[in-house]
Amino acid sequence: MNEVDSSPFSIIAEHGAARRGTLRTMHGAVETPVFMPIATAGALKTLLPSEVANLGASIILGNTYHLLLRPGEEELKKFGGVRPFMHWDGPLLTDSGGYQVFSLSKLNKTDDDGVTFQSHIDGSMHRLTAERSMEIQDAIGSSIRMQFDDVAAGNSSRDRYTEAMERSLRWAVRSKKRFDELVTDPTNRPLLFGIVQGGTHHDLRMRSLQGLVDIGFDGYAIGGLSVGESREDTFRIVRSLVKEMPANRPRYFMGGGMPEEIVAYVSFGVDMFDCVLPTRNARHGSLFVWKGDPKEAVREAFARAMDGAADFRIAEALYEKIQITNERFTADESPIDSWNDAETSKTFSRAYLRHLFKTGETLGLRLATLQNLGFYLRMMQELRLITANPL
Amino acid sequence: MNEVDSSPFSIIAEHGAARRGTLRTMHGAVETPVFMPIATAGALKTLLPSEVANLGASIILGNTYHLLLRPGEEELKKFGGVRPFMHWDGPLLTDSGGYQVFSLSKLNKTDDDGVTFQSHIDGSMHRLTAERSMEIQDAIGSSIRMQFDDVAAGNSSRDRYTEAMERSLRWAVRSKKRFDELVTDPTNRPLLFGIVQGGTHHDLRMRSLQGLVDIGFDGYAIGGLSVGESREDTFRIVRSLVKEMPANRPRYFMGGGMPEEIVAYVSFGVDMFDCVLPTRNARHGSLFVWKGDPKEAVREAFARAMDGAADFRIAEALYEKIQITNERFTADESPIDSWNDAETSKTFSRAYLRHLFKTGETLGLRLATLQNLGFYLRMMQELRLITANPL
Repeated sequence: MNEVDSSPFSIIAEHGAARRGTLRTMHGAVETPVFMPIATAGALKTLLPSEVANLGASIILGNTYHLLLRPGEEELKKFGGVRPFMHWDGPLLTDSGGYQVFSLSKLNKTDDDGVTFQSHIDGSMHRLTAERSMEIQDAIGSSIRMQFDDVAAGNSSRDRYTEAMERSLRWAVRSKKRFDELVTDPTNRPLLFGIVQGGTHHDLRMRSLQGLVDIGFDGYAIGGLSVGESREDTFRIVRSLVKEMPANRPRYFMGGGMPEEIVAYVSFGVDMFDCVLPTRNARHGSLFVWKGDPKEAVREAFARAMDGAADFRIAEALYEKIQITNERFTADESPIDSWNDAETSKTFSRAYLRHLFKTGETLGLRLATLQNLGFYLRMMQELRLITANPL
Repeated sequence: MNEVDSSPFSIIAEHGAARRGTLRTMHGAVETPVFMPIATAGALKTLLPSEVANLGASIILGNTYHLLLRPGEEELKKFGGVRPFMHWDGPLLTDSGGYQVFSLSKLNKTDDDGVTFQSHIDGSMHRLTAERSMEIQDAIGSSIRMQFDDVAAGNSSRDRYTEAMERSLRWAVRSKKRFDELVTDPTNRPLLFGIVQGGTHHDLRMRSLQGLVDIGFDGYAIGGLSVGESREDTFRIVRSLVKEMPANRPRYFMGGGMPEEIVAYVSFGVDMFDCVLPTRNARHGSLFVWKGDPKEAVREAFARAMDGAADFRIAEALYEKIQITNERFTADESPIDSWNDAETSKTFSRAYLRHLFKTGETLGLRLATLQNLGFYLRMMQELRLITANPL
């Protein structure tokens, strides 16, 4: 399937199914494949926006659900959106809020029109529909917005996957309509992405994709994965689905994943990623540490992915995962990771970082977050170099 | 009282009783009056050492009690002390551990030889004596070390104050003896300070001071205040005591205090300060914000202190204390404090900082700590300018 209308996305080079591209947004261009660090409710877990940019982030992700609850739609409007509020100058993508309503809210009830849910913070009741999601994302002022969708839990029945997929298609139409009404300046237009649903069923995924392409979006996302299904199923679905996605539009895998998954998905032709793993693992003292020179590690991992290697074989080439609170780091004077681009990873020792975690010093969170985001962002940089040049 | 032997301290200028000095340590010179941010167990609450240095800190304080428990004496020796461990290149002062044994440990029992206490972390039993305190401070590798002392609680009986003061004098002798044994290289010698005790009784304080001067220390500290006595009592004791302290030695007020107290103590002739207030208040969202141009604010506050103004009148000239979590900052787009030297205080809005606290984002702690330390350190810089030049 291909579209002919003008696209905000240009492919610069191809390497097998993998692509090196540029995505133009109203707030600047994004070089792909790209990883988007998560700024949940307008903050990047212990870090200043400038620090995340210095590590190589060109775009970040904000969560509509969190931002709707705090600071709230009216405040966001007052500040001209979350980008000026948090002092992030670059592009920002927002999810639709649907997934977090499903995973975080105390109570939620989905009907054909939308979702009613209770805030996990203060118990207040809220309602999200396709139209409201578009309005809130507009108040957030994001550069890339996601359609409102219905996410079926992992290992749902085929009936439930079908229902969620078809409902998501109807909501896609309504999202697009409200988005077009809100965007009054065509020369300064955010982007809107559709989300392919259908669980682990290729035929449902294909129906979803066809429906979305008929509506027409600036980009297409793969939703409803990384929610409990097996990694084998995820690989299978992503690989077969990506082949059918419009080649001239950005492809975004939502909410995943481990470094080895990202390398594999890039080799399948996915362009955009977001994931809580680098920041969440950092919070627990779990670090991704380079096996050696990142250039060689990522080239080796990518070569294995191109050969269809199992995920653990890809991981093996990339990183060692270390639990910094382990006894064995007590006297380890070596740097956290001398290959990491974060200056702090080269400066401070593993023993010191362990000490910070053991004493509950929040500086430890900072150093661990810089390490893990530094790892992911450097991996993406190397993937961009590989996809632009033959191995 | 004056001493004639060589002093690591030079007075550059005097302004009434206040002094502008330079204190030479084995790890670099410190310009006084000076405030020492607290790096409890080898970390400066959310901040990198370089960030604290950039705000104008020239010396920091480490707590012997905390460092003894974690990472422990053996680890500290392995790393060559806490300065290389935490990557702080400048001078570091350590307390003796006595005060925190008294205030933090689960159980503690003082006898004439020392203190036995139970760790507040894991319940393990430890013993501190004058000799052990010197050995641990040596393992920490601090530039300035404090004698081991016995601290009476605020509002103790005269008998208890007398006992603690006399015991501290005996421990001063033992501290000096063990210190001299440990310092084998006279060309690379740390400094040792004695601590004046005696509660709120001028005569006890004088006996303590005379005893310490007879032993001979590199500097003299005022201990056992800011522990529950009235501020009027503290002012009275500090004012009368400082007059009698050796003029050619640094004078250090331990553990205090509010900005207005520091301004007053500087006007009395105190040179060195440490306090948890800027970092502790930051943790609770309580901020010291300049009333206007710091140069004028500190000059006005200092002039009031020289006139013997009450502390609240000094405070009034200096700062507004704001609780950033208050409702009234919800839509406050003004910077946290445009006069603060921390770049983040000029960049981020009060509404955003409030939002970070409300959402529990640790970035909020960072911004608040930078604000409060920035306030204290700039105040000291202005006090150094004032004491070097007539008002």
